Parts: sequence; C-alpha cells; structure tokens
Amino acid sequence: MQRVANKRTYLDPIHQDIVLDRSKPAERLVVDLIDTVEFQRLRRIHQLGVSHFTFQGAEGSRFTHSVGVMHVASRLCDILCSRTESAENERALILATALLHDVGHGPFSHVTEKVLGYDHEDWSCKIISGDTEIRQILDNFSEDHGLADKIVKVLKKTYKPAYVSHVVSSQLDCDRFDYLLRDSYMTGTAYGLFALQRILRSIEVDEENDRMIVVGEKGQIAVEDYLFARYSMYAQVYYHRKNLAARALLGKLIKRARHVIEETPGKISFIDEETKHWLTGGDLSVEEYLTLDDVQLSYHIKRWLKDPDPILSDLSARFINRRIFKASRINSQDPDEIKAIEEQARKVVALMGFDPDYYVTVESTGFRPYDYYRPEEEHPQTNIVVRTDSGDVKELSQLSPTIEALVKGDYTAYWLIYPVEASEKLSETIASALTHVGTH
Amino acid sequence: MQRVANKRTYLDPIHQDIVLDRSKPAERLVVDLIDTVEFQRLRRIHQLGVSHFTFQGAEGSRFTHSVGVMHVASRLCDILCSRTESAENERALILATALLHDVGHGPFSHVTEKVLGYDHEDWSCKIISGDTEIRQILDNFSEDHGLADKIVKVLKKTYKPAYVSHVVSSQLDCDRFDYLLRDSYMTGTAYGLFALQRILRSIEVDEENDRMIVVGEKGQIAVEDYLFARYSMYAQVYYHRKNLAARALLGKLIKRARHVIEETPGKISFIDEETKHWLTGGDLSVEEYLTLDDVQLSYHIKRWLKDPDPILSDLSARFINRRIFKASRINSQDPDEIKAIEEQARKVVALMGFDPDYYVTVESTGFRPYDYYRPEEEHPQTNIVVRTDSGDVKELSQLSPTIEALVKGDYTAYWLIYPVEASEKLSETIASALTHVGTH
Amino acid sequence: MQRVANKRTYLDPIHQDIVLDRSKPAERLVVDLIDTVEFQRLRRIHQLGVSHFTFQGAEGSRFTHSVGVMHVASRLCDILCSRTESAENERALILATALLHDVGHGPFSHVTEKVLGYDHEDWSCKIISGDTEIRQILDNFSEDHGLADKIVKVLKKTYKPAYVSHVVSSQLDCDRFDYLLRDSYMTGTAYGLFALQRILRSIEVDEENDRMIVVGEKGQIAVEDYLFARYSMYAQVYYHRKNLAARALLGKLIKRARHVIEETPGKISFIDEETKHWLTGGDLSVEEYLTLDDVQLSYHIKRWLKDPDPILSDLSARFINRRIFKASRINSQDPDEIKAIEEQARKVVALMGFDPDYYVTVESTGFRPYDYYRPEEEHPQTNIVVRTDSGDVKELSQLSPTIEALVKGDYTAYWLIYPVEASEKLSETIASALTHVGTH
Amino acid sequence: MQRVANKRTYLDPIHQDIVLDRSKPAERLVVDLIDTVEFQRLRRIHQLGVSHFTFQGAEGSRFTHSVGVMHVASRLCDILCSRTESAENERALILATALLHDVGHGPFSHVTEKVLGYDHEDWSCKIISGDTEIRQILDNFSEDHGLADKIVKVLKKTYKPAYVSHVVSSQLDCDRFDYLLRDSYMTGTAYGLFALQRILRSIEVDEENDRMIVVGEKGQIAVEDYLFARYSMYAQVYYHRKNLAARALLGKLIKRARHVIEETPGKISFIDEETKHWLTGGDLSVEEYLTLDDVQLSYHIKRWLKDPDPILSDLSARFINRRIFKASRINSQDPDEIKAIEEQARKVVALMGFDPDYYVTVESTGFRPYDYYRPEEEHPQTNIVVRTDSGDVKELSQLSPTIEALVKGDYTAYWLIYPVEASEKLSETIASALTHVGTH
Repeated sequence: MQRVANKRTYLDPIHQDIVLDRSKPAERLVVDLIDTVEFQRLRRIHQLGVSHFTFQGAEGSRFTHSVGVMHVASRLCDILCSRTESAENERALILATALLHDVGHGPFSHVTEKVLGYDHEDWSCKIISGDTEIRQILDNFSEDHGLADKIVKVLKKTYKPAYVSHVVSSQLDCDRFDYLLRDSYMTGTAYGLFALQRILRSIEVDEENDRMIVVGEKGQIAVEDYLFARYSMYAQVYYHRKNLAARALLGKLIKRARHVIEETPGKISFIDEETKHWLTGGDLSVEEYLTLDDVQLSYHIKRWLKDPDPILSDLSARFINRRIFKASRINSQDPDEIKAIEEQARKVVALMGFDPDYYVTVESTGFRPYDYYRPEEEHPQTNIVVRTDSGDVKELSQLSPTIEALVKGDYTAYWLIYPVEASEKLSETIASALTHVGTH
Repeated sequence: MQRVANKRTYLDPIHQDIVLDRSKPAERLVVDLIDTVEFQRLRRIHQLGVSHFTFQGAEGSRFTHSVGVMHVASRLCDILCSRTESAENERALILATALLHDVGHGPFSHVTEKVLGYDHEDWSCKIISGDTEIRQILDNFSEDHGLADKIVKVLKKTYKPAYVSHVVSSQLDCDRFDYLLRDSYMTGTAYGLFALQRILRSIEVDEENDRMIVVGEKGQIAVEDYLFARYSMYAQVYYHRKNLAARALLGKLIKRARHVIEETPGKISFIDEETKHWLTGGDLSVEEYLTLDDVQLSYHIKRWLKDPDPILSDLSARFINRRIFKASRINSQDPDEIKAIEEQARKVVALMGFDPDYYVTVESTGFRPYDYYRPEEEHPQTNIVVRTDSGDVKELSQLSPTIEALVKGDYTAYWLIYPVEASEKLSETIASALTHVGTH
Repeated sequence: MQRVANKRTYLDPIHQDIVLDRSKPAERLVVDLIDTVEFQRLRRIHQLGVSHFTFQGAEGSRFTHSVGVMHVASRLCDILCSRTESAENERALILATALLHDVGHGPFSHVTEKVLGYDHEDWSCKIISGDTEIRQILDNFSEDHGLADKIVKVLKKTYKPAYVSHVVSSQLDCDRFDYLLRDSYMTGTAYGLFALQRILRSIEVDEENDRMIVVGEKGQIAVEDYLFARYSMYAQVYYHRKNLAARALLGKLIKRARHVIEETPGKISFIDEETKHWLTGGDLSVEEYLTLDDVQLSYHIKRWLKDPDPILSDLSARFINRRIFKASRINSQDPDEIKAIEEQARKVVALMGFDPDYYVTVESTGFRPYDYYRPEEEHPQTNIVVRTDSGDVKELSQLSPTIEALVKGDYTAYWLIYPVEASEKLSETIASALTHVGTH
Repeated sequence: MQRVANKRTYLDPIHQDIVLDRSKPAERLVVDLIDTVEFQRLRRIHQLGVSHFTFQGAEGSRFTHSVGVMHVASRLCDILCSRTESAENERALILATALLHDVGHGPFSHVTEKVLGYDHEDWSCKIISGDTEIRQILDNFSEDHGLADKIVKVLKKTYKPAYVSHVVSSQLDCDRFDYLLRDSYMTGTAYGLFALQRILRSIEVDEENDRMIVVGEKGQIAVEDYLFARYSMYAQVYYHRKNLAARALLGKLIKRARHVIEETPGKISFIDEETKHWLTGGDLSVEEYLTLDDVQLSYHIKRWLKDPDPILSDLSARFINRRIFKASRINSQDPDEIKAIEEQARKVVALMGFDPDYYVTVESTGFRPYDYYRPEEEHPQTNIVVRTDSGDVKELSQLSPTIEALVKGDYTAYWLIYPVEASEKLSETIASALTHVGTH
C-alpha cells in the first residue's frame, strides 16, 4: 500500500491512465491544484457548452479536458527536456498553467462570455492571483517562487522564455491537442483524430529564437494532418448549424433575463444574488464568480419556466426541452443584403407575435484552421515553424501548398436564426436567400 | 433537402449514426417520444450517478444511454423479425419500452433511490401512464393501441409474449448491452467490451417456450465473454471503493437534509417545494417528480454550503468539492464482527467530534454477473438458454464450467465508510480488520 | 444448422463481419467467385508490395482487400438502390467487378509491373474473359447475361451507365475507400481514417448526367476529409523514402535476373518455366500467368542467394535480408541538375566496385490526391461533384478553397537511390544536393 | 538528422511507435539482432500458421510478433527496474530472449512441428548457439558476457533468477500479452483485448521467492480479465473448427510428400535439398534449417499441383485453392466410441475412392486458459501469484472463484476431419455422433 500511496491515477478515456507521482514536486503541485475548490468547480461546466443538444455524446466537462491538457503538456515537457536541459526549470509552470488555463470559464463556457461581455482568461488570472486555494498552493510551492504571477504572465503571453506560452496557447498547443482528440471521441466523429505522439516527438525548443519548432518531414505531415483535423472539426462540430442555433437561443434567453431584472426590479420569479450580479454586469468578486456554473444557470432557467414574463418563460422552455431555434445559411456575404434578410425575417416573426429582438438574429462564423503571423492584426498568430530534413527553417505555409490554401481561404458565413414556427413563412418569403429552411 | 427531411440522425460515440426514419411508424414514434419534455429531462441525470468523481470520463447522461438502448433493441428486432414474422408486431412496443425504461430515474439515478425508498421503475410507469406528453403520443399511435398500458406491462414483466420483456430487461438485454459498452467507452476501460453484433446475430425467439434463445457455439462463447465483461465492470467500476464512498456521502447528505427540514421547520437555508416533498417522502405528483434532476439537487447542495446546520454544510462541502469519504474493505463476513467494527469506528469518529450517524456507515456489495432461475427467490432471474450446434437446448451454466463457477461464486463484501480525517485513528485501532486504511 | 447454411461470413478487421447470403443471386455469385482458383491466388500477393519492410504491419494480401472493396461496394449499392431503382439491375455487376478488379495483379503488385512493362488491369480482363473458373461462373450466372464482357467494359470504362465504373474506379471509389482504411489499420497510422459511412450515405446517382454525386454539406466535408486522408497516406506511407528504396531494389533485382537469363542462357542457377517467360517478356498464357505470385518470386530470389552471378546474388541477399538501398531526396526539380547528380552518384558507386546500372537510380514521386477533369490529359480524372444544401451542383474544388489548393499544388519530388555503403562517399561529394544522407 | 540517427522506430499497429535508442546498450543489441539474417527470416513465417484461411486478417508474421514481445518486455522491464534495482542487470538478457524466443519456428509455425516431430524451441537454442549472425552479435555484446548461453538457459528455464524466464515464458508472459492483443487486432475480434498497461503496472519482482507477483485488487481483476480473453481466443480463434481442418490438411499433405519421397526415390516432381532433408527427418544443419520458411514450403506445394502422385497433387490443390477439409465435433469423449467413429468414417471415404490414411483423421483439442502448479505433471505451470491489498499472498485460483472454475473445467473435445465430398455420406451413416455435418 505504501508503495502506491504517492501515486494518483486519473483513468481518462483519451489518454488512458494519467499517473501523477507526488514524490515529484511538479506533479505533487498538480495533484494539490486539482483538489482545490476552484478547480473542482470545472466539473460543473460543460466543455462544449450546449453542443450536447446536437452531438449527444458531448457531455464532458472542463475538468476532464483540463486534466487532459496538463497530461499532454507533461508528455511534451518530457520530450523538450530530453533535448533542452533548461526546459526542466519550466516544468511546474507549464503543468500548472496547462491545468489552470480554463479555470475562469463561466456557465456554458463560451456561450455566455459573448453575451455578457466578459473574458474567461481574465477570470482565470483573477482566480489564480486572488484569495483562493489555488493561490495559496502556488505560493507554498517552494521549487519555483512567484508561480502565480508567472502563470498569469504565461496566460497573457508576456512571460519569457516565450515558448512556455506557446506550449499552452498557440496554434500548436496542448489545449488544441487535447480538445480535438477529446471532442472527436465524445461526439463519435473521426474528424478530429491526428497523430499526437508523432507531433510531440517532433517538437523541439529553438532556443536561439525562443520558440517551438517542428522537426522533419514526418513532423510536418503530422502537423498538416492536425490542421486538417481542426478544419474538419470546426466545419462539422463546432460550427454545426444546430449548435449555432442552440447558442443563439441561450444568448437571447440570458439577454431577456437581464432585461426582466433590470426593467422590472423584484419581478423576476427567481434569482440568487450571484447570478443577479453576473447577469446585470455588477462588479463580481472572485468568490461570487466562483459560485457560477452550469448547474446554477440551468436551475435558474428551470425556475423561469414558470416566470410571469412570457418571453423569458418561453425561451426557458425552448432551452430546457430542447426546442431550439433553427439556423439557415444566408446565401450572401454582402452586409446590406444580410441586413435586408434579417429585416425581412424580423417582420415575419413579428407578424407571428414574436418579439424580433429575442427571436431573430444573424450569426457569423469563420475561422482559419491555421494562420501565419500577421503583425498588423490585433492578436497576430504565432507561426508554426518547421525545420525540414534538409535543414531549412520555414513557416509552415511556405512549405506546404495545402496549408497555404488553408491560410488563404475565406471561411466566413452568415446564418439567420429564427424559431421553428417561422420556417414555413420564411420559406414563402425569403427562401431563395437561405439554405435549409425546413421544419426539421 | 426533402429527401432527408424524414430522417433524424443521432451521432453516438458507441453506435455511430443512429438513423431514425419517420416514414416508418415505429421510428416516427421514437422520434416523437425523444422530443417530449419528460424524455429530455434525462439529459440532466447522470447515467452513472456520482461515478465521475472516480472515473472522470463518466459524465454521460441517461438520455444518451436510453437512445442507445433503443438503438440496440432496434437492431435486435431486425434480427428477430427476419426469423420470426410475428416479432414485427411487437416492434413499436419494444422500441418504445427500450427508450422509456429509465424515464423514471431521479437525481443521481440509483444513489438517491435507496436512501429515500422509492423505485425508479414505478416512476417510469407513472410517467408513461400519467398526464404527460409521452402518454399523449403513445395514445395517438394508431398502429398499436393501448401502447402505454402495454409498456407498463412489459416493464412489470406481465406482458405476453414474455420475450418482449426479456429484450428490455433480463440477463441478456439491450439495457446491459448498451451500458457495458458505453460505460467502458466513457471510463476508458477495456473491461466492458464484448462482441455485441455476434450476440445479436445469435439470438432467436423460441416461440414454443416464449423466450429468447442463443444459437450455436459462436453465440455461446460471445455470451460468456459478455458475462465476463459484466463481472469485470462490476468489480472494477460500479463497485469501485471510491464509488461506494461517494455514494455513501451523498446518501448521508440527503439523510441530513431531510432531518434538518423535518426537525427544524423553516430553518433550512434553501429548499424549493418539489425538493422538499421529495426529500420528506411527501406524495409527489408526476408533474412535481419531473422537476427533479441532478441540476436541481446539485443546486440545493451548493446553496447548503452556507447552511447554518454544520453537518449539512460540511457534507455539502465534501460533496461539491469532492472531498469524499474513504472506504475500507472489512476482512470479515461475520455479521457480529462487522457490527463490532462499525461500533468501534463510530466511537473513533465520535471522539473526533463527528456525528457517527452521518459520518460512519457499512455498505455491502455483491452480485452475480449471471444467475440461473431460482424459483424460490423473490426476483428469480430469467435463464440464458443456448441451443448448441448439436441441437441440445440447455441453460448456459450447464454447458459452460466457467459460467457455472460465476453462478456459484460468493461475491459479497462489506465496506466501512468514514471521513478521511479518521484514517489515522482507525488505522491505530482496527486496521487489522480492514484493507486500505490510508490517507489518500 | 440449416438456418445458417446459406450464409458465408468473412470476419474482417476493417469492416467486421462481412455476411454473404447465398439466397441472394448477387451474393451467391460473389461467394462462388471467391472460391475460384484464380481469386484464391490473391492470398499470395501482398497488398502493399514490399511496404512491410518499412511498416511492419503491412503484411496483408490483395485477397483481403478485394473482399473489402466488394463489401464497401455492396453497402454503397444498398444506398444507391434505396434512391434509384434502376441501380438494383447493376448490383451483381458492381459486386463482381469490385471483387475482381485486382485479380490480374502479379508478384508484389505494382512493383514488378513497371519494370516488366505490363498492366495488371489487362491481366484482370484476360483472366475474366479467359478459360478460367471465374469465366465459367460468370457465364453460368443467369440473372445477368454476358457478365464477363460487362465487367471488362466496366474496368475499361466503356460501360453504360458510366456511374457503375465510378463506383469501382474513380477519385471517389470503393477501392480507395477500402485501401485507405485498411492500410491505416495495418500500418498503425491514423492518417488514412475518414468517415466512410457518412460519405456512403451522401452519395446519389445523378441519372441525368450519368454520374455519382455527393449530396449536402456533411457529405462535402466528409469527402474533403477523405482527400486529406489520401494526401497524408501518400506522403507518409506509400511514398515513404524507405518504400521507394525497397521498390527500387526489387526492380533492379528483376532487371538483373532478366539480364542473366538473356545474356547467359542456361546459366542462371534456378528458374522455372513460367517465371522465365514472365521475366523475359515472353507471350504468357493466362494459365502461366496465374502461377505467378509473391511466393514464387520470393522462392526464386531465395535460390538466387547462391547464384554464380555476383550482382544477382548480392541484390537477392539485400532483398531477402532486408538490407535495402537508401533514398535521399534531391533538392532540385531541374532535369539537368538531377541528371548531373545521378551521374555523380554513378561515378561514386562505380569507384566502389558497384555496377551503377544496378546500384543507382533516380525515382520521381508526385501525385495529386484529387484532380478535376482535364480533357487534354491522357487519363483525365472524373470530377467529384457536389450538390450543396442550396441546390448548387459544382465540381468540388470550386466549392472548397482547400481542395482547390490540393489541385494546384505541385507534389513532384526526385529521389536518388543508392547502396548504404555509398552513403559516406556521397555525403562527401554531393551532400548539398541531397536530403538525408545518412548511414541509418 | 544527427539528432535522430541513434533512434530506430518500428511503427506497430498494436503498440504504436516502438522506438529503440542505439545509445542504450540493450536497445542497440536489439537493433542489431533484428537486422540479422536469421531474424529477418521470421518475416516469411506466418504468425498463425494457416489461420488466414479462416480469419482473413490473420496474415501477419512471426517477425512482427517477436518485435512486439520484445517491446512489451521492455515496458515490463522499466516497471520492474523502478522497484527492483537488480532487474536492470537482466535487461539485455530479457529483451534479447523476448525477441528471439520464436526464432526457431519452421514453416507455418506449429503446424509442421507436430507432423515432423521437432521442437521449435530446440531450434531457437541451436540458432542462438550456432554459427550465426545472432551468435556473433551476442558474443560481441560487452555489457553482459556469455549472453547466448544465458538466453538458452532462460528458454530452457534453468536460468537464475527464475523470474527472468517467467517474463518471457509463463502463464503471465510478454509472449501471450502480445499475441492475444495482436491476434485480436488482426482477426478483428474483440475477444483477446485486455488491460495490458494495468497488468504491467501491477507486476513486481518478489525477490525472496524469485518470482513475479501481481499486486493489488486492480491487478488481480486485470489478470482475470486477461485469462478470460485467453479462454475466448482459444475457443473462438485458435481452436476454430475450420482452423483444425486446415491444419490437418497441411499435416496430411506433408505426410504424403514424405511418403512419396521415401517410397519412390527420385520420383517426386520437385524438391530442393533442404526441404527433402527436413521432410525425411534427415540431420539438418542450422544453415539448412534456416532456408526453411512458408515461402519455400508453399512453392513446393504449388509445384506439387502437377505431381504425378494423385494423392499429393490432390492434397496440394486443396491447400493452395483453399478447398480444405471439414471438421465435425464428435459427441463423445469415450476412446472406444471415438475409435469406432473414425473407423466408420475411414470406410465411408475409402468407398468413395479416398485413401483413408490421408483423408480421415481425429484431432483432439483441449487446454486450460490457466492452471496452477501441479508438480506431478511433466511440464507443471508456474503459478500466478497475487498479493492482495490486505497483504495476503496467494495463488490466483485460491482468491477467485471464477478462476478456480477455469482451472477445474474440462475442455477436451474430439473432432473428425474428412473431405467435404464425404459430408453427405457421413451424415447418412454417423451423423448422430457428430455436430455440424454440412456441405458448407
């Protein structure tokens, strides 16, 4: 018994046994961080927001994903350290950051972030720096002082050496490695699979330029395959039409709840203090923020099924009973045309008695599965850099014509979101402008 | 678009695409039942109760499992119908029952059932027969009248032909087929894997004796392998020590909440009406019962973190923050010895200031992965019957020495459950009677 | 027993149970064709030539692959027939062609074809039309007269409707579907995986234009993913440097054996009649050709280990004992430069005592994972055509920027092949022109 | 390039990348041994003899399996060494023995061994000790002198410490670990899957008693599951009726070839020297033995298709064209009854013009998936020993009632083997004594 007392094992469906050895300082730190109140909260936040409405297997939590990212980062550390001695100094920092990078997520992850205008990474930083169990454990970690500050720097990408940030957050990071494999596994698609071990083994630290580098043709092909996997997962899962519709529904619901609270003080049928502050943009303390999770929001929505406000109760019922909105792709990229279509749709639903502010919206999707560094952009991407077998060191899209195409492609699309009841009417009026106007 | 409008597809990680064709009456019925308020509620109930505390991947819901059982039943129907024409008449009944068999589950599935003394199958029957969307859809199904009554009969095993019940609930049923594969997949163990397709293809209806029968040596070996899978999943997952401890913690928490409500009326910090009725054993209506789910109970527990009752708030904190009890196997099967050990443990924890009624318990585990029909028992099992290649028809354990052993084995074990703080003290006093007294 | 007597089951690692029902004419035909002497011969021909020298798992045969292609074609038929009644008329033809498309392959599949200047599809046609068991079974098939002629037409792409040929041989055919999945599985790479079921379900017959068509966005993305899979498999497996080197070695060995036979009549240490005819370009009868397989060629090479011709025995020893040549990528696409590099290499190895005609060669690789129809080319490709959700019908690369890039990319590369003993010398003289000059 | 020059990678479908680092002496040794002529010969010997006639995917070689066993042994070494320092001294010995344990296999592995009365392990020892490349490499290994002798001792189970032998050959050895997983994968069955990593992690060296020991409940359950896997694989794959029939056919063919050579000197149509010595029991040198493989025997059988001896040519045609014998289970365990059935069958086939010595046989099957140590037996099995969580150390069957049953079960069965042409006649005369007398 004593023999194994120092080991903690997480049996994970993606990575199999994740064994943490408490006799190693960095791994002991990880175990202690997992056991904090703040990290355990991630068990109550869905990894994929409301995607389980569309992909029934997508029921996993941020907790599981975060442990997975930490594990991948640990494997990558092993490889980096075998080639670059100094990497060992960063191990605790890398593992802790990988574990905690999502600790600031709120209810249904990204869905509410946008509507309420906050940023989960800011909250990650506040939780790490604040008066929390996490902070206390980080402060007590004797091997690497000031760990909390360092983690915040890594998350904000101001830490040096910079490759530490890249391990956790870049176009080739352990976060994406884990979520592509995990979301593929959970949703039951093959699209997100790629050769993780081969990529990990091909990564080196390029100390001179302070960056990670992919080495060799095998590594390059494996990375290309990973970018294709990412492309397919966005196209098939993350930006699935029904997913957009479910997210839009939740967004409208939250908007309406805020409206009811603000416009009719004391009239909402149920609201707890923390949720009220959060919804109305009050100045939330870290302690308050940490009470928020999917359970809390879902419970409120269930209670609002009987709210006297008819829009709030209707939107709540649609959400709880999965009678989500419809999404149709708009056959245009022209802003004026799109605006006109939205206007027409608003009229159609208004005539049916729906408030168009809560029952119609236009969403845009668009992403590049990979992009090279564009210094003029607000958040320029870190290049994926390859050293070929002949010794050339180049940015990936310069080496691969298919990746060049991924970079150049325009993937923007616009979607009209509306209640299923309006399908027929919309198909009579503006069907030609839309794809997929159906009743199913 | 019109072409596929009649198809509904659920992408499932276990069974891949589950395609339902609305142009077929039984499958249209299934689609309509899935869309009911009552069935959607299963999305908010964990399939494996609190097992995700031990196996992090075990985060799936009853919803996904139920759709899976229906799918397996549908495949089995295809096979039975290809050999027994009359089976086609039962298709809608079989699919609907497979889908709905778990619709009566409450918060955290089996965990609360035991503490509060209700039976989820009774609730399944009430929901199917009650004033519900499900009942309405069943009543409107023109192909097979009185479907609601028939489903209840199937669940209560009074329906004839009896093999219909066996498809959904027996020692070789679609429920077990789905959950073994699914729980293996979600937890990341290989233990529950078996050759489902081979078993399905080997099953026939033995009309003369009104039962299902496994045909041929290949079928027999596949069924044996399935029973081994079941044995290993119980040993490794369902009866995992930490699982027992987590369940016991939740049980004690619920017991304490009921105590606080009953003993100090109006004093509990937060309780909604339905939860109060449920906890205190009131006569719940179907409508009230249907508001219950993991979300609702979890929200209450979160609120009780600040309850003035110190025991309730402490147990809530242990549950929410995953500081669950410890479980040690008792090295005895003798009731008196076990009682004595429990008494000693109660004294130890009492001295530490814990109320032993809420901080110590003994749980027993024990099951046979397969049992033959024992008419003297309260719930005798339906035999698994095999027709060998030479034409013999026998109960499985008569054909297979290993299965005979599974039947004869005694798998009962007793476990002492206690708070982690008591580990050291217990190891000083009664360690010899226990296995695994550790602080981890 | 009688019940299952009509079923034949092949347990396949890729497609699981492939069940053939003799009570259905097309499937009985397939069973009878599999049982012919000519088809069983495919068990003795490796699917991937000499790739098992590089990917140790690649030990499967053309037999297994051919059964797999037939199975995929059968599933595709089911789907096409559910939408296009007339497709049922072509089922036997499609299944038989899918099964037999590779029946003309010779020893080590493609490797010897090139050196000896024959075409395996010609031999497929000769075997199907000739005095063979296959021909006899086809002639006896009463449901579809003149089947042998039709199969030949399908293989030669002159059959109408033309979509029948596309099922078996096009850029979206059952041959590729099977080999990508199978080769991925056998080599242990994830690169070739794609969503076969989703693609199959998205295919329709476009009767008006006599072609297959991919329907819907889901279908389009799945097809794109399949093309990425194909791209990666070529880059990582089929054109792996060591594979090129092993193939070149076998080619030189065969060239030398032919030389020894032709230049020194009666002096080769061992040769049977059929192998002699084959190697020396004699006019082989179908009966003679059918004696050829990997076993026969491998046995000859083993015997040549002791051949008095030193080059033949040396090349044989390198092949049998896997001391294969090296391949280095030439850092140039300029024909004159490449020629110059080859000349230098010839000088280097000549100085070491090797005959450069047998110890040095340049191989080119290059393929497009997908190409659109280019009418000016000798073998123009059949377009992959998509009908989008909005009803547009377009060639794939016009819809997808990434596929457009795949089409436009230039993937040609040149490789210098030489004996490992020359690595050091080559690295002294022309290393700058090469990648990967190593001793390992 | 230099960076990776010291690594050799085998991409294996079961274990993924098997990376060997030449900078570690034991791994460099392994690389050098793999590259020998004698080890490369294993590429030409099927791992599962003639099982690919029944399970089409079973086309892998002894080469691939042997590399796999070495890899598993290497992982086990890592674990043993982390707990028992002295284990490091045995690493090179363990890896080399794991790699070479099957190097003495002859054509079609076990099939010919029995007919011709030799033992592949004797040949493994001769090859390791003889004048071979393997011997030379072992002698040159400076870290561990006398390695060839030690390997022979390990194979003969006279080496001390004895646990070294157990790693390679026992009831819980790396050979079985690899072949169960590999054969499951290749045949496409789920039966042989088990939790390899969990077993490996639970194994310790019990130095006091010089044995391996399984630690903990988790380890015990994983080992039980592995034994169930082994049981199912024997029942479903290795002892599959058609496998028995194919093996018997090859056995009779070899017996007839020997007869023709011995009775009619110079009359057999084709035979090379080494094959002649082997078939007629001559005193083969190691050099001669090493020319034997599946290629050589298959080529002979192909040539014998036209042998003037009608029995030899007929048996050859059945083998090459997969028109194998039939096997029916005899419904009796009584030696006299079995003898009588065989006699009747001999009469039936004799009347049809077949020589019963070559067209009828009785085969017995029977094995225990696990057995405890029975000192009175010729080859007593090494116990699987478990240390439970409570510290008890016991032989496995004493801890587990199901394993106790596996030990006690009687799995012997007898099979009548005969040509398919005799099925009808046999079903008229002795069908009642048989199972499965069919024409398919």
